[in-house]
Formats: sequence, structure tokens, C-alpha cells
Amino acid sequence: MNDAPVTAVIGAGLVGSGWALVFARAGHRVRVHDPDAGTMARLLPWLEKSARELEAAGLLADAATVVGRVQPCETLQEALTGAGYVQESVFETVEAKTAASLAIDEALEGDAIVGSSSSGIPASQFTEDCRHRDRFLVAHPVNPPHLIPVVELVPAPWTDPQTMERARALMADIGQVPINLTREIDGFVLNRLQGALLNEAWALYDEGYADLADIDATISHGLGLRWSFMGPFETIDLNAPGGITDYAARLGALYHGIAMDRTQPRPWPAETVARAGEARRAALPETELAERRAWRDAMLTRLAAFKHSNGLGP
Amino acid sequence: MNDAPVTAVIGAGLVGSGWALVFARAGHRVRVHDPDAGTMARLLPWLEKSARELEAAGLLADAATVVGRVQPCETLQEALTGAGYVQESVFETVEAKTAASLAIDEALEGDAIVGSSSSGIPASQFTEDCRHRDRFLVAHPVNPPHLIPVVELVPAPWTDPQTMERARALMADIGQVPINLTREIDGFVLNRLQGALLNEAWALYDEGYADLADIDATISHGLGLRWSFMGPFETIDLNAPGGITDYAARLGALYHGIAMDRTQPRPWPAETVARAGEARRAALPETELAERRAWRDAMLTRLAAFKHSNGLGP
Repeated sequence: MNDAPVTAVIGAGLVGSGWALVFARAGHRVRVHDPDAGTMARLLPWLEKSARELEAAGLLADAATVVGRVQPCETLQEALTGAGYVQESVFETVEAKTAASLAIDEALEGDAIVGSSSSGIPASQFTEDCRHRDRFLVAHPVNPPHLIPVVELVPAPWTDPQTMERARALMADIGQVPINLTREIDGFVLNRLQGALLNEAWALYDEGYADLADIDATISHGLGLRWSFMGPFETIDLNAPGGITDYAARLGALYHGIAMDRTQPRPWPAETVARAGEARRAALPETELAERRAWRDAMLTRLAAFKHSNGLGP
Repeated sequence: MNDAPVTAVIGAGLVGSGWALVFARAGHRVRVHDPDAGTMARLLPWLEKSARELEAAGLLADAATVVGRVQPCETLQEALTGAGYVQESVFETVEAKTAASLAIDEALEGDAIVGSSSSGIPASQFTEDCRHRDRFLVAHPVNPPHLIPVVELVPAPWTDPQTMERARALMADIGQVPINLTREIDGFVLNRLQGALLNEAWALYDEGYADLADIDATISHGLGLRWSFMGPFETIDLNAPGGITDYAARLGALYHGIAMDRTQPRPWPAETVARAGEARRAALPETELAERRAWRDAMLTRLAAFKHSNGLGP
């Protein structure tokens, strides 16, 4: 047990709590710090509940053992003691990220590296003044990270390639799926792909081609089925007799035409967003959003168990 | 049994065969015609194999009964006898679709309606000269239709609204998921959403931000998990405290910025496509494409059973 890696989690909100579970599930000793006492008080109850749900789905052998690996810490310094990896998940503003990074930088031990859960702000905007800035990167998870394994690794211009290699090996080792970006870009890969699809979905809805529920069903009963276990490139590779180059030869012109329809992007139109809000609230009252999120996570748990038992997981 | 609806399937390739299984599974008497004898010879063996796979996955009570509902017909006229719905799935060229539509139009009985499996050519390009053109529409499935339930219903300018209503009711009744478009547009909804995501994926790969396998994993271990049971609008509705309008307020600017990066769309770059082809063939030799497609369909079968047993199916 004393040989188990020590990992620090700084910031214990929804994302930080999820990370604590991910590292503990993989056998790490996890040291968690958040300056907010209320947030820290919610950590262990959340971990116990979530670990039991994973156990019930057959995704975890022993929930109590996993939760027992998580150690709440009163100070950041205490959390970083002995840690070889630090996952920072503080509030997503440049100010909060900068302050947390400088504090971590100050307390960093040995050759430890630091990943930020930043979903949008690149590391170059908050690690420039760190002494060990070559050991900082973005390690962007999807929420909740214990159910959705992908993690985007994004270097700042000064991130050491060895830092990237170590982060990738670590993420693969704990059962996540690391994605390497070679350099920073707004939205990284995941949100750029999501954004491209959303921009087209909003345009089709705005122009009245189809209603909200039907556009949703096009994904949830159509494209999303294959995409839950193979990516867009592998999908088209299997969708033409001669593979991906054959597919591009057959359909490239159609897809170029679709892009040419969208050369004057507008912001998502405010009135259309309001109309979509009314349609969604008619389908699901605001008071039921939280319950529906819990349902989504329960379904993601079952889907993870399904993928795992069919050899489709990480 | 004699009360069961009669449905004609014209064209018995991969798509037409899938449709025959979909209608027969729903209890229809299915009359299939294809002018090519070799294609017709493959129909019943394929149906028997596919129906047994559905039965094994618990998606079908009795494969033999289902296959017994399918009647191969020597002529188009014979196939249309007594049919209230005709699904046309001939080769996708304007010439072939026009010839098939005119022949169906000639033999059409009573108030039967006709859906074309066209994945790209709108009905206005091949039904204009039909006498009953108000009863023709596009009913575009995803391959294979017995595993992926979404069907896009697209009217020509002269399609009767009642034809659309009847087609939607029929598709819902047989367990598919109909999507109504209000008018024609290149790529309909599904391929426009796929195209928008693919265009961004190609651009990121072309610009060297990430490699092919990592971009794929962003979907298959990330976005695709939620999308396999909820659409993009419901996904973002649950991803901000106040729902979809709150999400748009928080992230609309990011996504507008992503769109602004792509205001000069190029065709998918030929050299990049070639490089992707090499990467895919290194991952999966061309000789193994067919086997991998069979694996994909086996996984889609299990996913359909999983979604069904969790109340996530149509």
C-alpha cells in the first residue's frame, strides 16, 4: 500500500471530486484540498455514493476500499506532500487558475507534474510565471470523469515534451483515455467537434428545417449509436467499400457544399435560443433538470458497464 | 394474418434487405422485387442470418416467423399488389430513381404512398413527372436500418402534408424513429450534422493538432457516450445549471469563435485524406474491412438490446 502512487487533487467541486474517484479507483493514494469547508464536507459523502453506484454496476470491486484511499487535507501544502501528480480543478477564471498554479508551483515536490482541468483557458494564460512551468499542462476531462474516460492533454508553449509523455502514460495507466494535442487551440479538440455539430444544429433549427426533438433524435437514435464505440474517422472508413479515401472521393463534395453554406457564421441567434429554451422546458421543467442529470449519469454508468463487458472500454 | 399491412420493397440490395427485415419484424407482409436475379438470390439467406442474430440478442421473438413474412416477387407490379406503402431502395442516381419512381407511379394502388431511401438526392429531382407525385417523399434510413432506427422524412415541394403524416405514423408504428424535415436541403439533417463534425475533424487533423486515432477517441470515449442516448440539444440542456439558454449564454461566444475560424472552407485536402488512408490501413488492413463491418454490426445489435432493456430505444 505504501508503494501506491500519491496524487494530489486541488479543488474539490464536481470535477475535482470526480478526479479523486478516478485516481482512487486506480489504486492511488489521493490527497484532496479545497479552501472551502462546505465543498470539502460534500466530498466524502459524494465519493461513497458514487463508488457504491460503480460497485453496483460491476465497475468496481470494493467501494469502501476505494473511498478509503482518499484523504482530505487542510492545506494545499499538505495535499502536495509526496505527490507525483497534481490535478488542479479550481474555478475556471484566469485569476483563480493563476493563483492556484502559483501556489502549487511553490509547494511542488521532486519532479511532480501538474494537470489543470481547464475546459477552455489554455495553460499559457495562467502558468507563465510559474518556476516549474515546463511541468504544467492542461488535462481536460469530461464531466463526470469517472464515467466518461476521455482526457485532453494540451501543452503550453513551454510545457516539456516529457511532461506530456508522463501525463499520457499516467492517464492510460489509471484507465482514462488520453488525447494528445500538439499545441493550444480554442475549445481543444472535443469542444471544437461538439461546437461544429452544435453550430449546424442551431442553424437547421433556426431556419426551420426540423424541430428540436427531431434534431436530437437524429443523433440519439442515429449517428450517436456508432459514435459511442467508434470515432468519426473509423465510422466513415467502414462506410465505403474502399475505406476512408474512397468515402472522401464519394462524399467529399457534399460535405464541402455543406461547409460553403456556413461561411458567414452568426452567434447562436438569441430569439432562437429562447425558443429552444421554451421547447426544452416544455419537455422537461427546470425543477426536473437535476433529476434528469442523475438519470443521465445512471445511464452512463450502465453504458460504461456495457462497453466494458463487450471489450469496448479503455 | 390477412389483416397485416402489405408493404412493398423495391430494390433488394443492402438497404432494401434491411427494410424488408424492419417491416417483417413489425408484422407486415413484405413483398420484395429487384430486377437483378443475383440480388434476389441473396435476400432470403441474408434475412435468415440477420433475423437469427436479432433473436439471439433478444430483439426478436421468432426469426422464422419474421422471415416467413417476406415474399420475393418476380415483377414490380406483383410486389405492389395490395401494398399501402412502398419503400424504394434502388441505386442512387437520378436516372435510376426516376425510372423506378415512374414505374412505381404507374403500378400504384389505392392511396398507397412511396418513400425513397435516397441518402442525398431530393425527391424533387426524380418524382416531378409522376402522376401521384403528392404521394412520394424521401424516407432516408441509416444503414443498417434494422439496427439504427432513425429515418429522415423529406418532402418534395409537391408532397402532400398528409403523405408526410402517414409516413411518420407508419415509421413510428414499425419501431423506427421518424425525423420530419419541412423542406429539402442538401444532406438533410443527419449528414449535415455528420458533415459539420467531419469538416472540423479533418481541419484539426490537417493542421496537425492531433492524430487520427486520438480525434476518434475524443468521440468514442467522450462525446459519443451521451449522444448514444440523448441528442446534442438535450446534452447541453443538462450541462449548465439553468439549462440550454444558460449554456448558450456561457458558451455561445466560444462556439461562435470556432465557427469564425472556418469561414473559408476548403475541400477535404487530398494529401491529408491520403495520409489518413495510410493511417487507417496501418490500423486495419483493407482485407479486414469486411470483418470489421460485421463486428460493428454485432456491437450495434448488442447496443440496441442494451438500449431496449434500459428503456432508451424507440
